[in-house]
Amino acid sequence: MWQRCNTVSNLFRTRLAKEFDDRTARFHTSVVEDLRMFNEDVDGTMAHDIMLHEQGIMDAETLKKILGALQEIKEEWKNGELEIGAEYEDIHPFIEARVIEKIGLEAGGAMHTGRSRNDQVMVDMKMVTKKEMLAIAENVLNLVKTMCELADKHTETAMVYYTHGQPAMIGTFGHYLLAYVDQYMRDYQRIKQCYDRVNYNPLGATAIGGTNFRISRLRTSELLGFDYIQENSVDAVSSRDWAMEITSVLSILMANMSRMAADFVMWSGAEFQYITVADEYSSSSSIMPQKVNPSTLELIRGKSAEVFGTLQEIMTMVKGLPTGYYQDLQQTKIALWRAFDTTRTSVEVLNGAISTLTVNEDKMMAQVKGSFIFAVQLAETLAEDEALTFREAYKITAEVVKKLVSEDRTLEDLTAEEVQKVAKDLFGKDIKVSSSIAEKVSNPKKALNNLRSPGSPHPAEIGMAVENRLELRERYWKELDFLKIKLVIAADNLKNAIAKYTA
Amino acid sequence: MWQRCNTVSNLFRTRLAKEFDDRTARFHTSVVEDLRMFNEDVDGTMAHDIMLHEQGIMDAETLKKILGALQEIKEEWKNGELEIGAEYEDIHPFIEARVIEKIGLEAGGAMHTGRSRNDQVMVDMKMVTKKEMLAIAENVLNLVKTMCELADKHTETAMVYYTHGQPAMIGTFGHYLLAYVDQYMRDYQRIKQCYDRVNYNPLGATAIGGTNFRISRLRTSELLGFDYIQENSVDAVSSRDWAMEITSVLSILMANMSRMAADFVMWSGAEFQYITVADEYSSSSSIMPQKVNPSTLELIRGKSAEVFGTLQEIMTMVKGLPTGYYQDLQQTKIALWRAFDTTRTSVEVLNGAISTLTVNEDKMMAQVKGSFIFAVQLAETLAEDEALTFREAYKITAEVVKKLVSEDRTLEDLTAEEVQKVAKDLFGKDIKVSSSIAEKVSNPKKALNNLRSPGSPHPAEIGMAVENRLELRERYWKELDFLKIKLVIAADNLKNAIAKYTA
Amino acid sequence: MWQRCNTVSNLFRTRLAKEFDDRTARFHTSVVEDLRMFNEDVDGTMAHDIMLHEQGIMDAETLKKILGALQEIKEEWKNGELEIGAEYEDIHPFIEARVIEKIGLEAGGAMHTGRSRNDQVMVDMKMVTKKEMLAIAENVLNLVKTMCELADKHTETAMVYYTHGQPAMIGTFGHYLLAYVDQYMRDYQRIKQCYDRVNYNPLGATAIGGTNFRISRLRTSELLGFDYIQENSVDAVSSRDWAMEITSVLSILMANMSRMAADFVMWSGAEFQYITVADEYSSSSSIMPQKVNPSTLELIRGKSAEVFGTLQEIMTMVKGLPTGYYQDLQQTKIALWRAFDTTRTSVEVLNGAISTLTVNEDKMMAQVKGSFIFAVQLAETLAEDEALTFREAYKITAEVVKKLVSEDRTLEDLTAEEVQKVAKDLFGKDIKVSSSIAEKVSNPKKALNNLRSPGSPHPAEIGMAVENRLELRERYWKELDFLKIKLVIAADNLKNAIAKYTA
Amino acid sequence: MWQRCNTVSNLFRTRLAKEFDDRTARFHTSVVEDLRMFNEDVDGTMAHDIMLHEQGIMDAETLKKILGALQEIKEEWKNGELEIGAEYEDIHPFIEARVIEKIGLEAGGAMHTGRSRNDQVMVDMKMVTKKEMLAIAENVLNLVKTMCELADKHTETAMVYYTHGQPAMIGTFGHYLLAYVDQYMRDYQRIKQCYDRVNYNPLGATAIGGTNFRISRLRTSELLGFDYIQENSVDAVSSRDWAMEITSVLSILMANMSRMAADFVMWSGAEFQYITVADEYSSSSSIMPQKVNPSTLELIRGKSAEVFGTLQEIMTMVKGLPTGYYQDLQQTKIALWRAFDTTRTSVEVLNGAISTLTVNEDKMMAQVKGSFIFAVQLAETLAEDEALTFREAYKITAEVVKKLVSEDRTLEDLTAEEVQKVAKDLFGKDIKVSSSIAEKVSNPKKALNNLRSPGSPHPAEIGMAVENRLELRERYWKELDFLKIKLVIAADNLKNAIAKYTA
Repeated sequence: MWQRCNTVSNLFRTRLAKEFDDRTARFHTSVVEDLRMFNEDVDGTMAHDIMLHEQGIMDAETLKKILGALQEIKEEWKNGELEIGAEYEDIHPFIEARVIEKIGLEAGGAMHTGRSRNDQVMVDMKMVTKKEMLAIAENVLNLVKTMCELADKHTETAMVYYTHGQPAMIGTFGHYLLAYVDQYMRDYQRIKQCYDRVNYNPLGATAIGGTNFRISRLRTSELLGFDYIQENSVDAVSSRDWAMEITSVLSILMANMSRMAADFVMWSGAEFQYITVADEYSSSSSIMPQKVNPSTLELIRGKSAEVFGTLQEIMTMVKGLPTGYYQDLQQTKIALWRAFDTTRTSVEVLNGAISTLTVNEDKMMAQVKGSFIFAVQLAETLAEDEALTFREAYKITAEVVKKLVSEDRTLEDLTAEEVQKVAKDLFGKDIKVSSSIAEKVSNPKKALNNLRSPGSPHPAEIGMAVENRLELRERYWKELDFLKIKLVIAADNLKNAIAKYTA
Repeated sequence: MWQRCNTVSNLFRTRLAKEFDDRTARFHTSVVEDLRMFNEDVDGTMAHDIMLHEQGIMDAETLKKILGALQEIKEEWKNGELEIGAEYEDIHPFIEARVIEKIGLEAGGAMHTGRSRNDQVMVDMKMVTKKEMLAIAENVLNLVKTMCELADKHTETAMVYYTHGQPAMIGTFGHYLLAYVDQYMRDYQRIKQCYDRVNYNPLGATAIGGTNFRISRLRTSELLGFDYIQENSVDAVSSRDWAMEITSVLSILMANMSRMAADFVMWSGAEFQYITVADEYSSSSSIMPQKVNPSTLELIRGKSAEVFGTLQEIMTMVKGLPTGYYQDLQQTKIALWRAFDTTRTSVEVLNGAISTLTVNEDKMMAQVKGSFIFAVQLAETLAEDEALTFREAYKITAEVVKKLVSEDRTLEDLTAEEVQKVAKDLFGKDIKVSSSIAEKVSNPKKALNNLRSPGSPHPAEIGMAVENRLELRERYWKELDFLKIKLVIAADNLKNAIAKYTA
Repeated sequence: MWQRCNTVSNLFRTRLAKEFDDRTARFHTSVVEDLRMFNEDVDGTMAHDIMLHEQGIMDAETLKKILGALQEIKEEWKNGELEIGAEYEDIHPFIEARVIEKIGLEAGGAMHTGRSRNDQVMVDMKMVTKKEMLAIAENVLNLVKTMCELADKHTETAMVYYTHGQPAMIGTFGHYLLAYVDQYMRDYQRIKQCYDRVNYNPLGATAIGGTNFRISRLRTSELLGFDYIQENSVDAVSSRDWAMEITSVLSILMANMSRMAADFVMWSGAEFQYITVADEYSSSSSIMPQKVNPSTLELIRGKSAEVFGTLQEIMTMVKGLPTGYYQDLQQTKIALWRAFDTTRTSVEVLNGAISTLTVNEDKMMAQVKGSFIFAVQLAETLAEDEALTFREAYKITAEVVKKLVSEDRTLEDLTAEEVQKVAKDLFGKDIKVSSSIAEKVSNPKKALNNLRSPGSPHPAEIGMAVENRLELRERYWKELDFLKIKLVIAADNLKNAIAKYTA
Repeated sequence: MWQRCNTVSNLFRTRLAKEFDDRTARFHTSVVEDLRMFNEDVDGTMAHDIMLHEQGIMDAETLKKILGALQEIKEEWKNGELEIGAEYEDIHPFIEARVIEKIGLEAGGAMHTGRSRNDQVMVDMKMVTKKEMLAIAENVLNLVKTMCELADKHTETAMVYYTHGQPAMIGTFGHYLLAYVDQYMRDYQRIKQCYDRVNYNPLGATAIGGTNFRISRLRTSELLGFDYIQENSVDAVSSRDWAMEITSVLSILMANMSRMAADFVMWSGAEFQYITVADEYSSSSSIMPQKVNPSTLELIRGKSAEVFGTLQEIMTMVKGLPTGYYQDLQQTKIALWRAFDTTRTSVEVLNGAISTLTVNEDKMMAQVKGSFIFAVQLAETLAEDEALTFREAYKITAEVVKKLVSEDRTLEDLTAEEVQKVAKDLFGKDIKVSSSIAEKVSNPKKALNNLRSPGSPHPAEIGMAVENRLELRERYWKELDFLKIKLVIAADNLKNAIAKYTA
């Protein structure tokens, strides 16, 4: 958001106003979106020119001048001293013009030897994209940590689990949270695997068909932090499967978060009151002091649709294009940047909202009590403990529950005699039901502890699951660190090379 | 575009920087999107307060103070003197705070009597939306005019019509253009009918359930230029079918334009060269002077996907909401503004590109000549002129064409004898074919003039169709004028009322 | 659904099995989708050939034979005696082959004079489409009626209105229903206006560029029930804006229904229990007799996504095509048929579910009682009755409510003294509050009757609104009747013409 | 396709007709979609019951009876002897009823001990999904092979590469094909990685919260071919990120294929004639023997939109749901099955179309000749060979090309003197240009062989790339084989266990 404001503001303080009637220029330009990759563009040019020199295509003097000019421009940009108008189709001619302004055509004119704007834009986009994906992946793992910690506090917090919007079975809030932890883990995997596919360097593809110059694509990969080259030049310039994949992957993450956010919005309502969203993540009403609107969570739900929109946008755009480079592809940036901004801040804000959440255990318990979610327990207990087949146990339970409902009673009032009578009536069987049957099946704690299937809300198992997820998260975190370190090393390599050639 | 820059820039010169670490505030605020409806918001408040006074709910003195303060604020906004930070959730509390700052709580505090932010936002959005829809409708009718004028010049410009990407029949460029004129006419209708559904005033719905105050919703409708009230208060606040409809309607318009733009991109390629896009709508390559990239047309194709994205965004968002007001709905503005900006400028730019297009009639004719698109004419001629059933005529034609193809000849070389021989061979019939058969069926001009079905590319009919469409367009233009005049009258009413009460 | 089963079954009893390894044929064929327009296709051919005869292009004897053969085929189809395999690309060559089989090439071969499969398919699709749209429109008006009748019973049934998922203001169930009635009314309008745009006859456009034959497009329009011709032949064959519009319009309708269905799913949950869905629209659980799953309503919510999918499908497909006819367009049918089936049955089922709904007024009232939704009433009452400005009244109310919340009391316990004390403390003002203030503002009935803004949930106003909507619905119903009658007249004309020429 | 027909037909030959007026049943049922997982459902039940027995929850006699009944039912299904009507909500109650019919309630009633329809459906869907994904992955690798083989034949087939629809640079058809090979390789990766995430067994999650029975989820995983269990029971029942991912991944694959198909449709047009689609993948016109419509390729383009529709459908549906099981989720099957059918056959058909393609090398060369795509070569040659900076070389080239264009000449006519004169005029430099300059830069073969950047269309490099891709493809193929073998082993385990317990 800030970045957007910043960049647009930089634009606004330019000559754009003067060009106001130049409608087409403004329709055509991508300067606003390009500003976001200003630094990457300069770095890309520096890496390319260093390589040209090392391959014997550019002399040392020219390289020195170009690197010097580009460093100055980077500094000017940082200080907000540059003005770029919509008369520039994109930032690339602007930077070239600025270099030539500084060091003359003779030297500056060599800057773009052996490449084209097509592969230049692609490498810029991929560099920004990689950083954004790492940032989002990091945020996801932070969210996972917050949720594991919260889950750990609620391994025994009983709550109703719903199917069809109706109370169905007993669960725990900790176990519920872990269901989303597992989804976010898979989201992390998807982002990471997509990152690996983005991590191919397109620089050197030129306009579409390569060049006669003996360029080294491995050297620029090294200086810019790519693990591989995107070999085929047509593929490098024309394919956008990676952009489709990114918006898919981010849309899935947003969909997962949206569902959880929607649960929390509902659960913070007066009828549930399971949770209370912290004031710093709510908006309030001046007239109703009791009203706390979970508006940040609502926005996460709403903004998931925004990311879905970018997915549709990119897929429709790409599908409608012949092979090659077309101006349509310029729109990729706009959609990607929106997807990145919205997703990154959504994960952050959700993390903040979760970490400050108040869980109202008593309200959760109030719904557990008096509901018939223990009917399943009753049936399973009868089937296990007595000489009944499972289906018989089920039928007896159904009859018993029907009776209780009609008498406006709950399972807590159930007597052994009642159960025995139903068994007799239905199947003519004399069974022996423990006198503590009501307590046995309708005590939430006992019910949870009776669960024996792997992955159930049994408190002890949740505890182990939390530990296991935190370990996995630690492993992912290191994997991410490794990817970030590689970028740092590349930046360092570039810095050293610049220092060497400008010395 | 400009508006966006302007508003964001105003934001940037605010205290936002200071709040930079306040991530949630920035996530939550809709100030940037709200700026676009600043004037509408102030007008809405003035109309509401004038009504309150006229209904006896607000005294004259208070009204005078409020109107005065609001007029000052409007002026400050115009002069770029306001600073609104992200600490404001939206512009509404900002303006209220500013009024109270100017005239004190006693008077300023009455400003929002009998309404809520929910209906206030809705009326603002609808006012902006109405203006944007009229602007787009006007652009569409301008495009229709440009295309009719171009069609009128090309009623006789023969060209190949394609099916499955293969030459199929003869047509004309004028007739081709009219096919799109008819589509844009329907686009106009859709926009106009949607406008009529948007033209209902939600103000007075309050938060969701009305108010005890005896407000007049008709009076605010009159002052703000609405033809009707959106009666039911829940409907007024919660429904977004109108926003879904707008993005649908604009997506359809963009899809229609995209297809035509894609034709033109293909036809400006070296293999066709049917048209040349003017320099001011193209980008060129420094190294290949013969290369003219129809990049604005490519962008129209690309940007259609952007509008599709807003459709998906709004539909997904609305579908996922319970009835009532939710923060998710705040996103409606973002998507609508993008759809408006992109569509409006796309229509303008396409209009400009069409009006400056060069049509290369000789290149079109070159493809007509030597193709077999006249095979249909041959069959129909035989069936009409001779004692042959239609199916026989068809089979003879097929045989004749097969022969010509195998001998690498065209229909222009066809002799009457060849046709007669085939008829004899196939059906044992002696037919009499005019010796001018080749010329008759393969002369483009004659072929066109032989067409007799209504709606065909017959030159005379195209001429009439152009006139007819221009007349229809004139009718639509007047309809549009009427809608615009109503808004002017409303603005005038508001101005007069303000003058009266501030006198 | 049934239609689908029926047609597919007819297919299955064909030679398809034998062609099982003919993968491409099956990929390519549209026979399954075409079966749905079998009757329309035959009618279209009969109307076309009658016109050919009347225009002097086909002799009486040939026409008689063709009509006879087609009538037989229609009968065979009705009796399930036809077998159409995937070796037919679509049904059109099958029917032609069958005619020729019956009456020979001499007569049968004339059947397709002056038209092409392209305009033939289009006219078939539009005929089916028109019927489906009328059926859906009729269903929508039936739903409106059901809802008006239910609303009429609940003009006084108080309920909580929510914003942000929190209790916000008082409303009524009748008024809530009317909010959706107004949305469905607009849905009806959209369908009707779209119908008017579909109601243009494409027959006579031929493959894309018309014909030399002197055909009458008005005559076929008359016989097939079209009000106008879709004049421009390129437009008639290539445009699909009408299909995009239909899926848009149906998606909006589904989105509106989905939101209402989602409300009802939530409200049938244990925490609300506002409504109970009838058994015939629910699924139950064998083990939990108290559990009634509102699964048909859930399905309406889920199926709305299906219709959204068809919208995306058609928009993406159309946008990616050059002008002309392409095989891609064959997919239009598949998506349209799905959209029609899903929407039509969804409206029907929703109508059934609403008409059998049990409304639990006491449960609605239980949530009204004890909530703070009357805070607004208190503020407005103070502002109206006493010498307080509105903002002062608001601040007093806020303070009062805060006090009550902290003391775990409700507005029903409020005393006049408490209010007076707060007024004194806050503003130093001595005000006089009626001793019945608590009752005045927290009595649901009084609160509702105090509402004075047009469109609010005031019971008397709801009553009038119901009447008004029923009248409007009546008007729409007649409009629809008129459209249906026109189709009946056309069918009658066709029948008479067939009788005359086969006599 | 066939499968669909078959299943629907089976349905149709049921009691459905009798239930025709039972509209809601038909709206609600998922029997049609379920039929596709009939065998998987039976296998899932057998594996579950074997496990129950091994865990001591079911006695040997009961197991034997159930397995016997299920084997019979599988046989009946295979022989088409079953009739399932819409009165069954889905196939699960039908199969249970059939079992009980055969072996009585006593034994049959134990069949569903410790599980629920929710996890049962999930495991069925995942089993079908896994098979379908493997089939599609296999098809993709087959397509890769076909394309590599074709590319190998065209390493030297020169063609024009386009940007903005304009001739831009020289390329080869082999290199073009490899650009898509690399995309399909990434498509394979995405499918494989998604498969790994699908490969988690949900069985044992029960309705949502586990069970008291001591079930073994690892044992059912072993018998059903899952590598892992989907541990958390809420995650197992409620999450659909895997379905969103599948439709994303398939949509990306379809988008990639659609772009290539669109190229081929355009290139088979009269203006290009680069390729000819084989008759068995084309449709023809009876009247125009020269016309070959590449309709299967058009359909691939069109059907990509269908798969996009399923993506939107599933994402919208999932996003709009609270956590838990809802009837909406039933729609997942419908969308997935469509995505699988359409994608699988599209890859197959594309593979067939490519393997039978005729490449018209002379037509490709005809466009290469006489175009200015060698301008880049000229500039690079001048910059390399002479004492010119790169920018000077570019400016000279631009001037030279402009001159040639204006004189209607091509680069083949260029003389050394002309170049030298321009250099002198522009920069006052005397350069020495080889007299063979025209031949050097405009000979396609030489131009290709001069390319030195990795990934360019240099013929030798393409040859190596083909080999490299075939090796990679071999590796993927083995990976796939391994996955398939695992399923075979599991099926074998299940078979053995059944044999053992029914002995």
